[in-house]
Amino acid sequence: MPELNKDTQLCMSLAGRPSNFGTRFHNRLYELLGLNYVYKAFTTSDLPAAIGGVRALGIRGCAVSMPFKEAVIPLLDELDASAKAIGSVNTIVNDNGFLRAYNTDYLAVGQLLERHLLEQGGSVVVRGSGGMAKAVASAFRDAGFARGTVVARNRAAGEALAQACGWVWAAGSVPADILVNVTPIGMAGSPDEQALAFDPDLIAQAHTVFDVVALPPETPLVREARQQSKNVITGLDVIALQALEQFVLYTGVTPSDEQVREAVEHARRS
Amino acid sequence: MPELNKDTQLCMSLAGRPSNFGTRFHNRLYELLGLNYVYKAFTTSDLPAAIGGVRALGIRGCAVSMPFKEAVIPLLDELDASAKAIGSVNTIVNDNGFLRAYNTDYLAVGQLLERHLLEQGGSVVVRGSGGMAKAVASAFRDAGFARGTVVARNRAAGEALAQACGWVWAAGSVPADILVNVTPIGMAGSPDEQALAFDPDLIAQAHTVFDVVALPPETPLVREARQQSKNVITGLDVIALQALEQFVLYTGVTPSDEQVREAVEHARRS
Repeated sequence: MPELNKDTQLCMSLAGRPSNFGTRFHNRLYELLGLNYVYKAFTTSDLPAAIGGVRALGIRGCAVSMPFKEAVIPLLDELDASAKAIGSVNTIVNDNGFLRAYNTDYLAVGQLLERHLLEQGGSVVVRGSGGMAKAVASAFRDAGFARGTVVARNRAAGEALAQACGWVWAAGSVPADILVNVTPIGMAGSPDEQALAFDPDLIAQAHTVFDVVALPPETPLVREARQQSKNVITGLDVIALQALEQFVLYTGVTPSDEQVREAVEHARRS
Repeated sequence: MPELNKDTQLCMSLAGRPSNFGTRFHNRLYELLGLNYVYKAFTTSDLPAAIGGVRALGIRGCAVSMPFKEAVIPLLDELDASAKAIGSVNTIVNDNGFLRAYNTDYLAVGQLLERHLLEQGGSVVVRGSGGMAKAVASAFRDAGFARGTVVARNRAAGEALAQACGWVWAAGSVPADILVNVTPIGMAGSPDEQALAFDPDLIAQAHTVFDVVALPPETPLVREARQQSKNVITGLDVIALQALEQFVLYTGVTPSDEQVREAVEHARRS
C-alpha cells in the first residue's frame, strides 16, 4: 500500500458482520491506480451516530450492508433512483457533507442482465424474498421481464415482492427460462451448503442459471448448471460489479477490466 | 504498509489544519511493530458529530488539536488527571464506546522535566499564554517549580496562567535559570520566523533553553542556545514524546527508543 498522508481520503463499509472483500478489493484498486485513498470496514451499534460521523469526518464513501440497508434511509439527504426503486441502500457518497445514496446491487444486476440476458428474454423464477431478492427481482422487472415468479416459503414477503414486480408467488419452484437463487442455499457455512437451490430437471428446462451466492464461487447450483452447459451468472459477478460501481462513485475513476479482475482475484483470496 | 483487513483498528486525529506528522509517525511504528492498525488525519466542521462517529465506529484513538482541545471536553466520558490539570484534551482513548481523555503534551513535558531538569531546579520563564503554554507551565508547576514568570503581551491571559501556577506575570522577559518559548517566534512560516524568542544575554544567564516550536527542528533560539553550550530541549522532543504517549495509550505497546527515533525521523521528512 502507498503511504498515507493528511490528504488521504477514507472510504468505508458498515456491516453487522464485516467481511474482507471490500477492504481488499478497494485497497488493491487504489494501489493499482495510484489513488490517495484508503478503505476500512466498520461495524456499529449506533447507526445514526455512525452516519453522523461519516458526514462530519468527510468520509468520502460508505458501503452499507445487512442489517442497515433500510434503517439508514432516514439519515441520508437524497436517494438515487437505484435506491428508491427498492427502498434499500448499499452505497453512500459524501459530497462535502451531502449524503447521496445508491443501490449498486440493483445497478449491478441490471448491468448483468443487459450483458447476458436481454436478447434472450423469457420467464424468470427468483427464489428468495429478502433484501437482495428485492434488488434482483426489481432489476429484472425494470429490465422488462414481465413474466416472473417469486418462490418463497415466507408467503407474505413472497407475495409482496411478487406484487411489487407485477409477478406471481409460488411456494415451490416452477419451470422458467431463467432460474435465480437469492437464498443461502449452497453458501459456505450455511446448513444447506451442499444442497441444490433448483432441481436438475428444472435446470435442464432453463437457458440461464443465476446464483447470487458468492462464497464459494462455484456453488452446487453453478456446478450443475455448468455441467448442463447453461448460461451462468455467479454471485462473484454481482459482488465484483457492484463493488466496481461503488469504486467509480467514490473516486470518479473507472479501472480497466484487467485491473478489476486482479482486484477481485486478490479480494477472493482473503 | 501492511495490507488492511476487516480487523484493522483505526486511530485518527482531529485538527483545524491537519499535518502529516501524526499520520507518518503512527503508521511507521505500526509497520515496524507489525500491528494491525492504520492512522489517518481528519478535520471537521461538526465536532459533536465527529466525536459521536469516533464512538459509534469504534475508532480506537483520536488525537485532538487546535481549535478543538477545550470544546471537546463536554463530549467525553472521563478526563484523566493530565487533562483535568489544564482543562485541555489532546488524546481520546475509546474503550468499547467509553471515551477517556488525556493531555499527552502535559505528560510529555513532565517527562522531559524529569529527565533533564529536576536535579538542576531553579527559576523558570514561560513566554506565551495560549493552550500549549498552559500545558507547559502546569507541568513545571506540578514538577515542583515554585519560582516562575509568565511573559505575555496579553496581560489577562498571562496573569490568569501565572496565578494558576502560583507564579508572577511580566510584560517582557526577565532573567531565569530556565527559559521556555511557547510562542510562534522562530516558527517556519511565522512573521517572526527569524527572530530570537529570548535575547542572547538572557540566554547567557540561563542553564537551560526549552523551545516548544518544532518546525524547523533548529529554531534561531535553539541555535543560539547550542552556540552558548546550554542544555537544550526542543519542540521535536515534545512532539515525539507526546506522540509516543498517544501510541502507547492506543495500542498498549511500547516501542524501543530506536523505533521511536526512526518513526520521528520518518515523520519529519514529510
